[in-house]
Formats: sequence, C-alpha cells, structure tokens
Amino acid sequence: MTDTNVARVVIIGGGFGGLEAATHLAKAPVSLLLLDRKNHHTFQPLLYQVATAGLSPAEIAGPLRSILGNRKNVEVLLSEVTGFDLARKLVITADAEIPYDYLIVAAGARHSYFGHDDWEPLAPGLKTIEDALEIRRRILTVFEDAERHAALHGHHEDLNFVVVGGGPTGVELAGTITEVARQALASDFHNIDPKRTRVILVEGGPRVLAAYPPDLSQSAEDQLKKLGVEVRTSTVVTNVTEHEVHMGNEILPSSVTLWAAGVAASPLGRALGQPVDKAGRVPVLPDCTIPGHPEVFVIGDLAEFKDATGKMLPGVAPAAMQMGRYVAKTIKDDLAHRPRQPFHYNDRGSLATIGRAAAVAQFPKFKMTGYPAWLAWLFIHIMFLIGFRNRILVIIQWAWSYFTYERGARLITDEVGRLREVRRSPDSKPPDAPELEPVERRSA
Amino acid sequence: MTDTNVARVVIIGGGFGGLEAATHLAKAPVSLLLLDRKNHHTFQPLLYQVATAGLSPAEIAGPLRSILGNRKNVEVLLSEVTGFDLARKLVITADAEIPYDYLIVAAGARHSYFGHDDWEPLAPGLKTIEDALEIRRRILTVFEDAERHAALHGHHEDLNFVVVGGGPTGVELAGTITEVARQALASDFHNIDPKRTRVILVEGGPRVLAAYPPDLSQSAEDQLKKLGVEVRTSTVVTNVTEHEVHMGNEILPSSVTLWAAGVAASPLGRALGQPVDKAGRVPVLPDCTIPGHPEVFVIGDLAEFKDATGKMLPGVAPAAMQMGRYVAKTIKDDLAHRPRQPFHYNDRGSLATIGRAAAVAQFPKFKMTGYPAWLAWLFIHIMFLIGFRNRILVIIQWAWSYFTYERGARLITDEVGRLREVRRSPDSKPPDAPELEPVERRSA
Repeated sequence: MTDTNVARVVIIGGGFGGLEAATHLAKAPVSLLLLDRKNHHTFQPLLYQVATAGLSPAEIAGPLRSILGNRKNVEVLLSEVTGFDLARKLVITADAEIPYDYLIVAAGARHSYFGHDDWEPLAPGLKTIEDALEIRRRILTVFEDAERHAALHGHHEDLNFVVVGGGPTGVELAGTITEVARQALASDFHNIDPKRTRVILVEGGPRVLAAYPPDLSQSAEDQLKKLGVEVRTSTVVTNVTEHEVHMGNEILPSSVTLWAAGVAASPLGRALGQPVDKAGRVPVLPDCTIPGHPEVFVIGDLAEFKDATGKMLPGVAPAAMQMGRYVAKTIKDDLAHRPRQPFHYNDRGSLATIGRAAAVAQFPKFKMTGYPAWLAWLFIHIMFLIGFRNRILVIIQWAWSYFTYERGARLITDEVGRLREVRRSPDSKPPDAPELEPVERRSA
Repeated sequence: MTDTNVARVVIIGGGFGGLEAATHLAKAPVSLLLLDRKNHHTFQPLLYQVATAGLSPAEIAGPLRSILGNRKNVEVLLSEVTGFDLARKLVITADAEIPYDYLIVAAGARHSYFGHDDWEPLAPGLKTIEDALEIRRRILTVFEDAERHAALHGHHEDLNFVVVGGGPTGVELAGTITEVARQALASDFHNIDPKRTRVILVEGGPRVLAAYPPDLSQSAEDQLKKLGVEVRTSTVVTNVTEHEVHMGNEILPSSVTLWAAGVAASPLGRALGQPVDKAGRVPVLPDCTIPGHPEVFVIGDLAEFKDATGKMLPGVAPAAMQMGRYVAKTIKDDLAHRPRQPFHYNDRGSLATIGRAAAVAQFPKFKMTGYPAWLAWLFIHIMFLIGFRNRILVIIQWAWSYFTYERGARLITDEVGRLREVRRSPDSKPPDAPELEPVERRSA
C-alpha cells in the first residue's frame, strides 16, 4: 500500500459486490486493499443449507485471501471500519487511518427488526455463517428435546417452527425445515409424532415472493403447501417472545422462531455523511458514486440505485456483482482517461428455491416452476459457488442427500463463549500440588 | 425402553467405547439406550485437523442417531447424566430416572490442568469439536492481526505458538501448526515475517511421546525439529497468563497457548461411589465391571484396567473399542447363560503423526518412522473414520491439501454468544417448555 505511483483502491466488504470489484481490479495498475470484518466470503444464497444441516460452513465459504490469490498488489486485512474522512480521503479503523484514491463501500446489510432489536435473540436471522450455525443448533436441539421427552415421559410438546417473512430466504427456510422434519429426521427419531410438527410461514404482505410475478408467487405458495408448510399471508407479527409469536390477538406457540422479514443496510452507509433511505441505503448517482465524491462508490445491498425509469435495483447477488464489475471498469476507465459510462443492470432473471425439486424461476423471456426450476436453480448455484473444490464437495453432498434423504452436517455444536472469556488473572495462583495426575492420551 | 421382556442396557457416552458397545449390542435381544451430552460421535484422533483448518467438523463427526441406524430397539437421547442409584439400578438425569439391567459407563475424559483450571481459557485443550473450532479461531486470528499490523504499521509482534505437553496430541498440534505457518499460510499473507513465527513444544518429562520406545521418541523429536518446531523437554510449565507461559524463571511470550499436557477422567467416575485413581479413573475387575456390581461396566478412558501383569491399559481409541466389543459380548454371554470370559487387550500397535509425511509407528513386531509411518497412519485413520461418506470427503480434502498445500477450512467464525443470551421475559415461558439452551458441554 505504499507504492505512490499507482492509485490506491480501498474496498470495504468481501461480499459479492466487493469481491467482484476486487477480482476485476486485481490485474489493473492499482494498489488494492480489501477490508472485511470476517476472513471469508460467504456464499449467502446457500446459507439456508448450513442452517438446515445440509452443508458445512467451509463448503459455502472461502477465505478471502485464497479467493483473491497471491497477487502482490492485493492486500486483504481483517479489520473493522468505524468511519470515514471523505475530505482527507481516509478510511478510519480501530487502529489506523487508511488513505485511498478510490473507495468502494460494499458493506452490505443485516436483518431489520423494524425497531424491535430485542427480538433478535428470540428470532435469529440468516446472514452469516454464525447465524446459520445458531439456527441449526436450535432446530436440531428442539428435535432432540422432544425425542427425549417422548422417550422418557411418553409425550412431547408440539414442535412449531415459525418463519417470519415470505421472501426468498423465508420460503427456502420454511420449505427446507419441513423436508428435514418430514424426511431426513423422520427415520432418526423414534418417538416424535410427525403430526405434532408444524412449519408456519408468516408474511405481512398479501403474497409470498412479492418481488416475483403474482402467478409465480401463487406457484410458490402451492409448492410450499404441498410440502406441508402452513402459509399465512397478510399477517403481521406484533410481538415475539421466547416461545410465542404474536400476530395481533392471535398467539402462536413457537419452538423455534426465525426471522426473514427485512434487511437494514450497514451503519457504514450513514457514516458516509449522506442522507440514507428508510432501509439505511445510500442513494447513488448513475456511476454508483455519491454526490460530490466521484472517487467514492457505494455498491451492493448498501446502495440505493434507481434506473432511468426510477425502478430500484433489487438487493440480489447478481446486482451486487454487476455493480462490482462496473466499478472496477470505471476505475480502469478513469486511469486510462476514458470517460465514465453509467451503470446498467442486466436482469438475467431470478430464482427462488422452495425445497427438494421445488422452486420458481423468472427469466426475461419465460418462467418455470417445480422440478425444472429447481434444476435450473441447482445448476446456477453450483456454477456460481466460488472455488472449484467447494463445487465438487457440494455436488457430492447434494447427490448424497438427494438419494438418501440424509443431511450430512446435523451436528449440534455448542459455542464456546466460556473459553473466550479470558480472565486476566493478576499473576494467577502460585503453583500448588497437582489435583490429578496426567494420563497419556494417544491417537488411535 | 418399555419392553420388559428384554434386558435394558443403558450406555453413557457415544465415544469410541460406548459406540462400539452399542453397535455390537444392536442386534442382540436387548433394549438399548445410549445417552450422550452431544448429538454426535467425534473422531478425536482427527480433531487436530479441525483445529488447524484442514478439515470441517462434519467430516470428522457424525450424528450418533445415523451411525446407529434405524433399529427399533436402539434409542439415542441427548441427555446429561448427573448421577446413579446403583442399588435401585437407576441412571439419574436432570429430568428423569432411567432404569437399567446393564449399565455401561463410557463417559471418557477431559483435560486436566493439574489444579489450575483458571489456565483453561488461556490455554485451551483439544477434546471436542468446540475446542477445535476455538483453537482454529485463535490461530487464524493471530495471523490476521499480525498481517494487519505489518501492513498498516510496518511491523508485527512475534508469533509464538506454545504447545504444552509432548504426548501425541501435543506433537501433532506442534507439527501441524508449523506446517500451516510455513506453507499453507505463507502464500496467503504478504507482510508476515516467517522468521518471527516460532512453534515451541514444552514437555515436562525427558522425551516426547513417552509411551513409545525411546528410539521412536528420538525420531519424533528429530522429525519435529526438521519441520521447525522448537522442542523443550524436561521443562515444567509453572504458570500461564494471557500472553505468556512461565517455566520456572523463564518467561516465554505466547500468542497462542495450547494445552495437551494431561487428561482427567469424567466426574461420572466418582459418581459411581467407587474409589477412583489420581486421574479420576475407576478401577475395574477383569470383566470391566466394578466390585459388587456385575451389571455395571466401566470402559474406555474412564476405566483403570490392569492386565494380569499389573500393566495399565493405555487410554487410546483401540483399547476403548475393544472394551466396548468385549462388554457387548459379555452381556450376550450372560443372556445366553454362558460364563463370562475376562477381557484381554490385543495391542495391535500405535501410531503418532507429526506432520506432512512425518510420523512414528510401533507395531508388535516392527517399528516405522517418517514417510512410511505417515502412510500407515493415513491409511488406518481413513479406514477407521466412521461413515463411508465422511471417508470420501476426507480423502478428497487430504488429496487436495497434499498437492496444493492449501487448508480448506480456514474460516474464522465468531461464536454467537450474543444470540444465545436469551432474555427470558417472565410471561413468555410455558411451564414444561424446553429450555433454549439445553446442550451442555460434555466431557467424553
């Protein structure tokens, strides 16, 4: 980062947008620095597979360092950005001020609880590997508890899985949990009464997958119901407690509540000092920059980009990736003294999976539902999965699951907060007599 | 578990011993109940691969339910045993008293800090998936921190990895961390000075791998040194602080301290009301039962078994597995009114891996070191890995790592203590509802 002959580009966030920008700038005559709070890129469209024990974290996430390869002009640093000094062209982190010539802010979004942040621990959302592992732990644990109660006491509580939000994430979670409950786990548990397992998808609006055409929404709802999901549209959640979801006067008991109802852009959007929209997104110009700062790009879920007709860009991976590529090209244009072109989003279609052999797909010229849509979804997602090795492993896992109905990664792992509470012992205790004598442990 | 015509066998612990007993009793005319605090069996000999980012948890752990298959007479329950009532033949758990005709206690062991339990958060040991993920997080995080410091400020602190304990776990951790630091991560990080990375293995006794013949210990030490590990034998650790390891007057700075110095048997040994040895193990009779209770077996790391010559059985997986098989056979003998035979341990040899193409192996008639020993180790471990599917995945990962020097699972995942701090709203908890956090850390 000390070569002053080349433009210094700082990218914040290693999601789809930031990574795509980095990849396309790596060979340019720039000095590139990617900052992220995590050391890995997460393939978010498959997070629900981790949450439902189908895939392991390492199969859908890859270290940013290895994705970007071993280029001398590319640095990846694990760092938390706290703010900006746009006048002095500095990114502020906890332990440094980092100068840039170009800044690409691609910090993404998290869940929004619409002002009810106290609901988060009660109804986790699905944005990170950690979220997915926590959801997996909760789902598998309620099955284990029910099995134990039934085996030892002859009965168990109802198992109600409530998914709040009927967008793509809610739909795939509801569909997959139903499959897991009905098929993958049915043979594992002897005492659980399948009739006491319900999966309820609650959507505030009139239909699921509201971003899709109405007939695809209807198809998705039909496919969900066929899988066994109870779909409750036009139903607004008014409160979430530890074992309940309140919808006005109706109270639904819930063993596990999951949140897929809304996203809020990263607080870094506000830190840019620009007005943001209600979701915290930063309005950007046709070249994805913010007004008055042609060197500051905002892309992906953090950007509010409207096309010439005023239509908002959807918060999907392909849009973020196209913006990332566009910004890389724009910086290269600048460096070559070519004029900037405006960003144009090429909507190649969208797919939402619902479950085993169930999906909807909308392409510019045609639509698909059911098995063909699911095959298209599968093919496209495997092709996009970053890294050849991950692709092979995921294909094996999926082929295995498809034919055996088994879920390969259904481990309940406790998180180790205990170990991380490093007690600072003021010089500890004086060595006293060993309580127990060492025993040799050897590998098999 | 309510069929009163067949013997009720309760197994505590799904480690190597308990699982082997369960597998060999599954087809017998018994009603079998396996209790464990985790839902999965962990292939402990490969835990160090998870700790050093080579493998993912699901590749070395399998759900107990699926390993034991779908037999009507086999129940697996996620449950924490708190005690026993041997007179009334009951296992006591938090929410039930479970009757048995035969009891097999295979609760295993955890680390022993020789009375210094306050060292545990400062120097985690390696017994569970959670331990391995925490160690992986610590190792990768210090590399990331050093890279950031070096990139932003031009220098970084020394990276000292101190492994306490020169048994098989300490040796494989020290060897593998050195490899990771020298090779797998060397190309990932641009700014870290490899000369400032040290791996120090501290052993209190005069040689590493003390359970092996002296010439193999010497070979192991030579192989470690060749990899770049500093081996400090006859060196006793007297204190551990957050960034230091004290050895008498010498203070070694430490970025990550790992504990592989001793194990202590599960407290369930004491709960049997028998005298235990200094390591907490329960002395057992030649048929692996405790005196006065021919229906109560103790096996694996929890048992103190001495052969006819007074030699103690080693705390290794093959010994636990052989005990498990023996107990299954003995119960079947009882049911068929055949006399019991005493347990006889068949020592087929032992292997310890040190790193890439480095190991030592001791078989009854010959010894091996270096590459051939490593190949033997690799073959035996892959063959023993439970589950066909895991074997395939592990082979792919290993082949990949071997040829590319890449580590596939180097994700830093933050643990999600935040999400698990469920605030209990007073009006939200139905009386008999399952707790949100029922999963306890287990010691087996």
